[in-house]
Amino acid sequence: MTRKLTLLACAASLAALPIAAQEPLKTEYPSPPEIVAKAKAEEWVAIAPSDLMVMDLAPLGAKPRRVVIQLMPPPFSQGWIGNIRKLAAAKWWDGTSINRVQDNYVVQWGDATEKKALPEGLAVVPESEYINTLEYFALNTPGMVSEHMIWPTRADNIYAPAAGFRKGWPLAVDYYPKGKSPFNKGRKTLDQKAIWPTHCYGMVGVGRNLSPDTGTGAELYTVIGHAPRHLDRNIALVGRVIEGIEHLSSLPRGTGALGFYEKEEERVPILSVRLGIDAKDLPAFEYLSTESASFAAYADARANRRDAFFIKPAGGADICNIPVPVRRKAQ
Amino acid sequence: MTRKLTLLACAASLAALPIAAQEPLKTEYPSPPEIVAKAKAEEWVAIAPSDLMVMDLAPLGAKPRRVVIQLMPPPFSQGWIGNIRKLAAAKWWDGTSINRVQDNYVVQWGDATEKKALPEGLAVVPESEYINTLEYFALNTPGMVSEHMIWPTRADNIYAPAAGFRKGWPLAVDYYPKGKSPFNKGRKTLDQKAIWPTHCYGMVGVGRNLSPDTGTGAELYTVIGHAPRHLDRNIALVGRVIEGIEHLSSLPRGTGALGFYEKEEERVPILSVRLGIDAKDLPAFEYLSTESASFAAYADARANRRDAFFIKPAGGADICNIPVPVRRKAQ
Repeated sequence: MTRKLTLLACAASLAALPIAAQEPLKTEYPSPPEIVAKAKAEEWVAIAPSDLMVMDLAPLGAKPRRVVIQLMPPPFSQGWIGNIRKLAAAKWWDGTSINRVQDNYVVQWGDATEKKALPEGLAVVPESEYINTLEYFALNTPGMVSEHMIWPTRADNIYAPAAGFRKGWPLAVDYYPKGKSPFNKGRKTLDQKAIWPTHCYGMVGVGRNLSPDTGTGAELYTVIGHAPRHLDRNIALVGRVIEGIEHLSSLPRGTGALGFYEKEEERVPILSVRLGIDAKDLPAFEYLSTESASFAAYADARANRRDAFFIKPAGGADICNIPVPVRRKAQ
Repeated sequence: MTRKLTLLACAASLAALPIAAQEPLKTEYPSPPEIVAKAKAEEWVAIAPSDLMVMDLAPLGAKPRRVVIQLMPPPFSQGWIGNIRKLAAAKWWDGTSINRVQDNYVVQWGDATEKKALPEGLAVVPESEYINTLEYFALNTPGMVSEHMIWPTRADNIYAPAAGFRKGWPLAVDYYPKGKSPFNKGRKTLDQKAIWPTHCYGMVGVGRNLSPDTGTGAELYTVIGHAPRHLDRNIALVGRVIEGIEHLSSLPRGTGALGFYEKEEERVPILSVRLGIDAKDLPAFEYLSTESASFAAYADARANRRDAFFIKPAGGADICNIPVPVRRKAQ
């Protein structure tokens, strides 16, 4: 009796082969990674180094631990980004630490002492900036929704009437064109005509105190579990981890309340945080345009797996189960 | 300026206090954990030791690593459970290892050599057992749905017309009473009159080869990321991790294809796997009855967070964002 280690559509014996020797299974329908691999060069969008932020943790033994974050551009994320740029430029996070690792929830970092002075001139961002309405009006231009958002079958309607992608980011939208969806009937709208980023795995947000505090950006967290979408519209999202999240998600879980480390020596030292333009040895990154035909095919394949392993396509996917492909740009 | 480490409704300064000194914030509405803490003793259901399975990994330094799994009873999970009981009774997993850790996906364990002989008499389970129809008919008894399933507002309809809980387990259902939900209109049914368990964080499933293989139960995995609901109805679920998942979710990620460890020394040795009735030093566990009033209040609070931290309740929660509370039974 053969007993393979497979869970997805590759045989376990692949694990014993070098990466280059791996051939995709022959199947009538390509898998999501196969679709991404075949995307055209012009479907990939370069990420500006000024939109990257690099966090170097203390090495684990001899192993360096670098986490690369892509900052979310306006209008999806707003006033906090300016603060974060100032904090990175001031090298404010150097010498701070990762202080909280809560299983199936978040990893959080910043100044554990709560005594380190902040740079001058940080903005106090109002709660109104958790959501955005400007972008809605752009979307509402005839044809824009179908051209610029992907709407997988039944992509969302638990946390918002609809969800999709624009300019590389997962977004919830309290809008869709009349008659386009069967799911709007009978449900109340949330923030009418609003759009907001979603708390998917790897997204980076701003820790805060109780309302009306919205956080400065000095305390950041990233999602390492099932998407905590109840945080949407309650807390600012400012970006996502695009490389090295395993250095955060595989950290020992904190044993204190909310996953905080109880002992000072458990905290993971942050050597430095730099904007991409100031970081050493940073490769170029690119994401698959969410407005591209390949992304549409990829999202459809995530929602309707037809590759060899699957016997019943789901018929839909939630927004956080369609991660936007990001990769190092080939040299 | 105060800068607290908070992300949820507790001040960072809690982290410096012993657990016993922590008081919940005073708020008009209790948080989900507060609701669970106040549940009556009779709302908790004891888990039979015969439904538990204990996996002891090699210690990490001096730290023991025990993972406790609750096996899913019939009719939700079917033929595989008998195989798993035989494998545990035969001590088949002793000396095997954790071989795969794929970030935001699964941890998988079993015989990396693929050469270890299986016990005699394991069942070959058909694909038809990925779903269940018997339970549907029980649910269809007048009154049963409202009494025995929790239907948070907009609990699901991406991966199934509805989802809810019964006897402690998260289930997707291709059924609900006429007129009860506004979300059925315009969508096709999947497996008419079917019910199946959902791939939430911590759920344990059976690795398999390509269809029609369904796996024996010798290769198991657990979900350590955003719920891969596309695996529902494509692969068998047999239980969930109820304690010690951090020993799996915090493991170093594998660098091979699909997160397999590339070097033998990276694999994490499994010292033993025993059924609860054969395990040493195993405390008693209990879960909050999903048919209880406290669970209904807890699910509602997960879907509509009104405690002090939140400014905008989501108005819904996906099935995997309402984890069933499980705890050690007080001595």
